[in-house]
Amino acid sequence: MIGIFDSGLGGLTVVKEILNKLPQYKIIYFGDTARTPYGTKSAETVKRYAIENTKFLLERGAKIIVVACHTVSSTAIPVLKEKFPNIPFFEVVTPSFKKALKLTKNKKIGLIGTRTTVESGIYDQLFSQADSEIKLYSNPAPLLVPLIEEGWLKKPETRKIVKKYLIPLKMKGIDTLILGCTHYPLIKKVIQEKAGKRIKLVDPSEEIALEVKNFIENTPELAKELQENGEPEIYVSDITPNFEKIAKLFLGRPIKLKKVNLE
Amino acid sequence: MIGIFDSGLGGLTVVKEILNKLPQYKIIYFGDTARTPYGTKSAETVKRYAIENTKFLLERGAKIIVVACHTVSSTAIPVLKEKFPNIPFFEVVTPSFKKALKLTKNKKIGLIGTRTTVESGIYDQLFSQADSEIKLYSNPAPLLVPLIEEGWLKKPETRKIVKKYLIPLKMKGIDTLILGCTHYPLIKKVIQEKAGKRIKLVDPSEEIALEVKNFIENTPELAKELQENGEPEIYVSDITPNFEKIAKLFLGRPIKLKKVNLE
Repeated sequence: MIGIFDSGLGGLTVVKEILNKLPQYKIIYFGDTARTPYGTKSAETVKRYAIENTKFLLERGAKIIVVACHTVSSTAIPVLKEKFPNIPFFEVVTPSFKKALKLTKNKKIGLIGTRTTVESGIYDQLFSQADSEIKLYSNPAPLLVPLIEEGWLKKPETRKIVKKYLIPLKMKGIDTLILGCTHYPLIKKVIQEKAGKRIKLVDPSEEIALEVKNFIENTPELAKELQENGEPEIYVSDITPNFEKIAKLFLGRPIKLKKVNLE
Repeated sequence: MIGIFDSGLGGLTVVKEILNKLPQYKIIYFGDTARTPYGTKSAETVKRYAIENTKFLLERGAKIIVVACHTVSSTAIPVLKEKFPNIPFFEVVTPSFKKALKLTKNKKIGLIGTRTTVESGIYDQLFSQADSEIKLYSNPAPLLVPLIEEGWLKKPETRKIVKKYLIPLKMKGIDTLILGCTHYPLIKKVIQEKAGKRIKLVDPSEEIALEVKNFIENTPELAKELQENGEPEIYVSDITPNFEKIAKLFLGRPIKLKKVNLE
């Protein structure tokens, strides 16, 4: 099974992409809806939660772990690799970084994400190592997650707030924008509209799904071990009628959520 | 010591009011910032967290517990009283209900709060028991907490969203509006502006502080046991620079946060 986890339900955009690209494998997902969101919390707390989530997925039979959360990807990967040295981990930051590097022509790249993701400085580090001429301009956009979870995907308030977050990045003349949060693909159209046609968007869910696909196709041993049919199993640490609505929104179809208590 | 807890830092508006009204008593506060917000989570999860928070405060010497959180007040009080039968509990719902009952003239009352608070139906229950002629109109306002925690207290986006939440209540002709969340006093002016002068607001933080004051003044034994000087002790389950900024905003002055891990 392919194990995927996120702070909540945003990672279901990654599940959707992986299901599209790798329909032959079974997926087990854990969304930490009892402690969501992670993006406003400290790196230390995020690391603790990431370890618990990984343990849960491995105990249930996951063979690889896909971290479908930018906040965890930008703060907890080293600690996860140290704790679970034999497990292949995939995270959203590196593939998004690579894609942005490929897309940019003027070497001015923008990033929006949660506060914890932006403040982790991980993208700054990757770009400065790759090409010292690249300028990364970032802006935390903490209200987008609650707006998306409210289902306000096209509301005028959402458009106005997206515009506000993008203004400082547009003023710097960026030609590429990283959507630094797995929630954001749900408002990709609004973001594209407010960014303007000239700015190319990097969708983290698409990029990580491609990375996972490539890895599995190049590791036949693993491909064999993963082979398993069946509906994805979606676990959450809390269920409300609203979470069920959000899950449907993110995955694009209704899905049964199963509750589990990690604490 | 007076023990006070909240899902996060919103309850500091209650600390502020209690400090104003009862400066002679020492306060111990716990804000569950590692698991905040509660208002989007299920009643079952909220109950579990409420028990853990209460235990922590009692272990540290609290003699009474003030639940400075609408979501907990509307879902977990019976379970807390059952678990801790000898402890006086105070919650925000009853005093807000009483105040609204006193203020309304046309018997049309409005309520805004988190989804869990509104859906608990606790206010509906209290009003229908008290006076069957009263009509309660409620609207969940889940985006206000993130907007306030972003410090967007007077931004045009906040005004617009407040207006949007109030429209259906104003259309019903309410003359009283309960601010059903301890965060909302921070945007009381904006809410009053959008509600219009004719609608009277019920501030839960003021009402619960009055209730605690009355109780202590009428229970001399307890007053003696509580008497203790000193700065309030503010514990949180997670610290970030942004939480420190929010704490200052809520309390009206800088305060040292101490981190503790309940899990």
